[in-house]
Amino acid sequence: MRMRVAEEARFMSDRVFDVDPYAITTTRLADDQVRLIESMTSIGNAHMGMRGNFEEGYSGDTHRGTYVAGVWFPDKTRVGWWKNGYPEYFGKVVNATNIIAVDVEIDGERVDLFTGEHEDFRLRLDLRNGLLRRSFAYATASARIRLEFERFLSIETPELLFQRVRVTVLAGAPHVRMTPRLDGDVHNIDANYGEQFWSEASRGCAPVPHLSLRTVPNPFGTPQFTVTSGMRATAAGLAPAGVVDEPLQVGEVFATHAEPGATMELVKTTAVVTTRDIDQAQHVDAVDRLLTASASRSFDEHLAAHTALWERRWARAQVVIEGDDEAQQGIQFNLFHLFSTYYGEDERLNVGPKGFTGEKYGGATYWDTEAYLVPLYLALASPEVTRALLAYRHRQLPQAQHNARQQGLAGALYPMVTFNGIECHNEWEITFEEIHRNGAIAHAIHLYTRYTGDRSYLEGEGLEVLVEISRFWADRVHFSRRAGAYMIHGVTGPNEYENNVNNNWYTNYLAAWVLAFTSDTLDDVPADRAAALGVTDDERTQWRAVSANMHLPVDEDLGVNVQHDTFLDKDLRRVDTIPGDQRPLNQNWSWDRILRSCFIKQADVLQGMYLFEEDFSIDQLRRNFAFYEPMTVHESSLSASIHAIVAAAVGERAKAIELYRRTARLDLDNYNNDTEDGLHITSMSGAWLSIVQGFAGMRATDAGLSFAPFCPADWTAYAFTVGYRGRVLAVRVAADRVEFALSGAPLQIFVFGRPHTVDGSLALEIPAVR
Amino acid sequence: MRMRVAEEARFMSDRVFDVDPYAITTTRLADDQVRLIESMTSIGNAHMGMRGNFEEGYSGDTHRGTYVAGVWFPDKTRVGWWKNGYPEYFGKVVNATNIIAVDVEIDGERVDLFTGEHEDFRLRLDLRNGLLRRSFAYATASARIRLEFERFLSIETPELLFQRVRVTVLAGAPHVRMTPRLDGDVHNIDANYGEQFWSEASRGCAPVPHLSLRTVPNPFGTPQFTVTSGMRATAAGLAPAGVVDEPLQVGEVFATHAEPGATMELVKTTAVVTTRDIDQAQHVDAVDRLLTASASRSFDEHLAAHTALWERRWARAQVVIEGDDEAQQGIQFNLFHLFSTYYGEDERLNVGPKGFTGEKYGGATYWDTEAYLVPLYLALASPEVTRALLAYRHRQLPQAQHNARQQGLAGALYPMVTFNGIECHNEWEITFEEIHRNGAIAHAIHLYTRYTGDRSYLEGEGLEVLVEISRFWADRVHFSRRAGAYMIHGVTGPNEYENNVNNNWYTNYLAAWVLAFTSDTLDDVPADRAAALGVTDDERTQWRAVSANMHLPVDEDLGVNVQHDTFLDKDLRRVDTIPGDQRPLNQNWSWDRILRSCFIKQADVLQGMYLFEEDFSIDQLRRNFAFYEPMTVHESSLSASIHAIVAAAVGERAKAIELYRRTARLDLDNYNNDTEDGLHITSMSGAWLSIVQGFAGMRATDAGLSFAPFCPADWTAYAFTVGYRGRVLAVRVAADRVEFALSGAPLQIFVFGRPHTVDGSLALEIPAVR
Repeated sequence: MRMRVAEEARFMSDRVFDVDPYAITTTRLADDQVRLIESMTSIGNAHMGMRGNFEEGYSGDTHRGTYVAGVWFPDKTRVGWWKNGYPEYFGKVVNATNIIAVDVEIDGERVDLFTGEHEDFRLRLDLRNGLLRRSFAYATASARIRLEFERFLSIETPELLFQRVRVTVLAGAPHVRMTPRLDGDVHNIDANYGEQFWSEASRGCAPVPHLSLRTVPNPFGTPQFTVTSGMRATAAGLAPAGVVDEPLQVGEVFATHAEPGATMELVKTTAVVTTRDIDQAQHVDAVDRLLTASASRSFDEHLAAHTALWERRWARAQVVIEGDDEAQQGIQFNLFHLFSTYYGEDERLNVGPKGFTGEKYGGATYWDTEAYLVPLYLALASPEVTRALLAYRHRQLPQAQHNARQQGLAGALYPMVTFNGIECHNEWEITFEEIHRNGAIAHAIHLYTRYTGDRSYLEGEGLEVLVEISRFWADRVHFSRRAGAYMIHGVTGPNEYENNVNNNWYTNYLAAWVLAFTSDTLDDVPADRAAALGVTDDERTQWRAVSANMHLPVDEDLGVNVQHDTFLDKDLRRVDTIPGDQRPLNQNWSWDRILRSCFIKQADVLQGMYLFEEDFSIDQLRRNFAFYEPMTVHESSLSASIHAIVAAAVGERAKAIELYRRTARLDLDNYNNDTEDGLHITSMSGAWLSIVQGFAGMRATDAGLSFAPFCPADWTAYAFTVGYRGRVLAVRVAADRVEFALSGAPLQIFVFGRPHTVDGSLALEIPAVR
Repeated sequence: MRMRVAEEARFMSDRVFDVDPYAITTTRLADDQVRLIESMTSIGNAHMGMRGNFEEGYSGDTHRGTYVAGVWFPDKTRVGWWKNGYPEYFGKVVNATNIIAVDVEIDGERVDLFTGEHEDFRLRLDLRNGLLRRSFAYATASARIRLEFERFLSIETPELLFQRVRVTVLAGAPHVRMTPRLDGDVHNIDANYGEQFWSEASRGCAPVPHLSLRTVPNPFGTPQFTVTSGMRATAAGLAPAGVVDEPLQVGEVFATHAEPGATMELVKTTAVVTTRDIDQAQHVDAVDRLLTASASRSFDEHLAAHTALWERRWARAQVVIEGDDEAQQGIQFNLFHLFSTYYGEDERLNVGPKGFTGEKYGGATYWDTEAYLVPLYLALASPEVTRALLAYRHRQLPQAQHNARQQGLAGALYPMVTFNGIECHNEWEITFEEIHRNGAIAHAIHLYTRYTGDRSYLEGEGLEVLVEISRFWADRVHFSRRAGAYMIHGVTGPNEYENNVNNNWYTNYLAAWVLAFTSDTLDDVPADRAAALGVTDDERTQWRAVSANMHLPVDEDLGVNVQHDTFLDKDLRRVDTIPGDQRPLNQNWSWDRILRSCFIKQADVLQGMYLFEEDFSIDQLRRNFAFYEPMTVHESSLSASIHAIVAAAVGERAKAIELYRRTARLDLDNYNNDTEDGLHITSMSGAWLSIVQGFAGMRATDAGLSFAPFCPADWTAYAFTVGYRGRVLAVRVAADRVEFALSGAPLQIFVFGRPHTVDGSLALEIPAVR
């Protein structure tokens, strides 16, 4: 308990950002916090995005990053000791042209917050529409000015970035020069050998300043990308003063001798297109057309149209927490960044671990999508969004078959990390062994089918995926003659603080479930489907046999499912026996010590029991939670939310609330001390899951939606909205009362296990805690 | 059986080298075999060595390599995902100045065996004295010549390289130009980021051409080295024609217009000194002095003195196999290269995995030294040589303590790979987990003590090492409440085809033995020694408890020691169920598949039973051999010899002979298809161990030497010599008879378990196979 207080005190004192329910704001600018600020104020619109870098440049420690969705480079891998089956390349997001650049010079002196004298710094990212604003007063030897920057990435026309820069002269009569630029002199921090991923393909200043960068050739046969940016700048109070046209740089120059008190304003619009959508030969035309079309409306008009679209999103997805601004800020922050990263418009895309906020980890697709994001998108967006995520995997089935072949195995192995479906991660204990991901991808098909009631994907493309995943599992198991059961040796479960274990309960359970689910689905579809998929009767018999005879480690005395074969031989201890100064373990303990310890990084057995809750009694769930949670350090961003949900289900409400805070404010409070590298995008569903599945106890079952709500004691109430089978259901939970408001046809729901029909609205009492 | 024949046929047809009992000879020069030839004809004298590169250069595929003992560079590590406790740098042997260079030009055309027309190529490395000779006829447009090269690295004055080059004009009257050079334009193949490790420190042509290279500065605080080479050349039939003095190059030029039939001869002597021995400021003086002193004798006189010293070595170590030239060549090749790498003169050195024959693997000290080489050096060299190897570890005790601290553990953890004692290898499953090495280092102290009868090292510095290793083990175990025993989780045993296993029998047995051995030794020394070492009574109690209550997995039904906790759950199969085209597994199977399979890379349980043979009955040994050997693929160079010894002990003579061949001719027949990278130096004791401990059944026990000899059916007889406690014992084994000849005081030995006293000589009958 002492530790938690100490921990909280640390977070409070370190807090860079104010508590504001719908914005990220700060008036602090510490040199050593700039990367953190940049991460937190990233913006994106699914097509592209960038970190909260400063338009005028910054000569201190900074990580400039602009990223374009689906544009990547196969970097040469870097690993000490090569092993057969290792991938040949590591797909990296490419740090793209810096399109925000606007140099500002006052009497020839470049404005730079690292070196220059400034005050009244204010930074604000609006978490409802993604408008980023920054202002400060700045003094040179000869003058004082006020500078204001605004920018947003349009969700109406995702190729467009809008910027406005305003200079007000507070003292003196300086010469003011502003240079809006496109800067292609960029490189990846995350490049294994420091190589440049780009070269200039073309540039020019007519019809608009434009710059095309092309990824350099690669020896792996993956496509090259060209990204072209074009800009248009208009100025009030400044006169054109030339152009910039030199290698990797194009732009325009505006200047004036300013009067005391004068205000100058520059509006810069930038269009970005790629060869993912448009032939390179058409790029200049395309950006010119986009810029010409956009010129018919003002910055404010564009912002208004953009904001209206965000409001439409929020109408379907807004979560309101009454009486707790910190909690509100947490959920708003997470949903805002998630929707900024992916909103289902482009089914060639997926959700990368850092979105557009950084470049760490490489790849752009992790199992996080299926395991943590699908339930959220099912409820908050149209079914087509989730179906796009499923189709993404179906499209990559040949590559997943390639991955399995690389390991000498049948069927399909979906990658741990990828852009194109080919595995591109190089740790054997992860790449070869963290294969439970293959189960999560199958399970997401089940989630979609159960939530939407639409069996067409399952019985169509989904079944092709399921069959190949089943083939993989059936080959990856072995029969242990000694145990008389099928086993899966050499895996890493969700708990990455143990590697290369045998019979990880989660993996085995999930694999057995996939084999049964595929078999059941084959039983349900016309007989010629199996033949068309080349599935033999022998295979079907084997899949049933493996599923039915999978070894599942269980300890009858403890009444728990056992994480893996030898877990109970460990020195089993509670997390609270670890001295506080040794946390987080991954920054304080050697890898050796972490691996040998009993301490769990993230939900493992509990992750499985969460996925298959209906297979277990509440008593089983309670015993397993009581056994595992005290050994769990939650050092994965994916851990707290699942534990919050299970804690709520077993009545551990205080624990559920504690874990909600942790997941909701992971980046806001920089819990893992790594937010400067970028935000934890794929875990951002955690806060929503904790509220909706945790506090409100929502489940989608075959019988429909069910709820078992409670309201955290510190909150007055909370409200959220979910879409469900053509309807929108608004839910508000207060301490003693839950209210439902439905748009659409009447719906039967279950509350605390009892059926109710909602037609318009429904209010029910919440019984006092049992 | 079919497979073995096919395998043998492959080796025969691929054989590059002739079967010659005391030489490596070939008349074949295939472009794609040059690296292999270079490895095989490497020479060394413990101070330095080089691959069998061609003096005149070679423009085809080649790996030029010259290495100076103890000179290394801390290369930046390369690893995908950093983890706590990982080392900061990876120590690499540095490819040093090419000192063999002698350019030869005929009418301005440079002689180059890759591009030029040549015939009658002959190459011969004498395995008795390391004289390397090469000759060929070479035709240019205008002339035909014969070229002969000879070189050797002196073991009389190890700083010196002697070379002789002879040109005979066969046709024409060409202009002949020869340029003996020192070439510092060299780089490491094994450099993680392709960086240069050297820069020129100084050079000049007076008093002799000399070149100093200095390792570039490093950020890790490890010492820089300067290596200075100086040369002196004399020519007959050629006139001085200038000098070479340009960056990284110095040399002299000799030329003549040759008459038809003329013979020209160049003798080049090179001296190499380093800052390991001599201050950089004295280097030029030192090489000049060495060269001046050497000038008083001719090439042939130096060769004779050098050869006489080699003969002295052979008198103590020669193994003779009568009736099998292949087998003779195998043992001769191994002993020659081993003595060329290390002969105990410099106790700052150890035996690197490639010696002076390549640069793969990095580091220069592996556990191989203690596990495989100590028994050989004990028998073939003076006790001081082994004591130097032990002292090497004692000197690095503080670094081993550092390694343990890096893992958060007490005591000392000797490194997997090192130059200076600091771990410099970066695979967690090896670096952190292959900790059985720590036991081998303790066990070598026991081997030395038992063989020599000298307890002074054990009770002196040895005890300091034992105490710190014991502290490590006592901290690395944990007590499993469930099992009521101490366990060692998360290790990699000698079988590196499984990683991160729990309770590896070998590791646990060895750890328990170390704790008991240390405790016993502490009981034997005066009580104040323990106090001086800071060993408390509590520690001693704990060490005894851990040793006595160590969990040792055993299967009573099978009657075998179990490799690790879950080994028997695997799909247990014999190696002969693997299709032949899938061998070796490490070149054909994914790492995932190898890890999950039952197939064993090298002796693991059997390695332990070999070390502690006296703890087990012959029946236990037989059952374990019968169980494990059929699952063993012997894909480590360290495997076959241990199996040969155990096979001999349990009466599996055919198997023992097969495995002897494999270990003795590993490089000669390029079994693992990797000899082009360099020779497998640290496994070169294998052939000797197979003969002496295997066929002759020699054991050093507390009671003295014992023998249980047999003669392989294909051999007429074999003979070897061992030193033992101030005596030299020659042993000759024929089919029906073993003869002993002793120099020194009478010695009691045991033959087939019965005591005999040797005084001068003894002959005994060998009973027919039971």
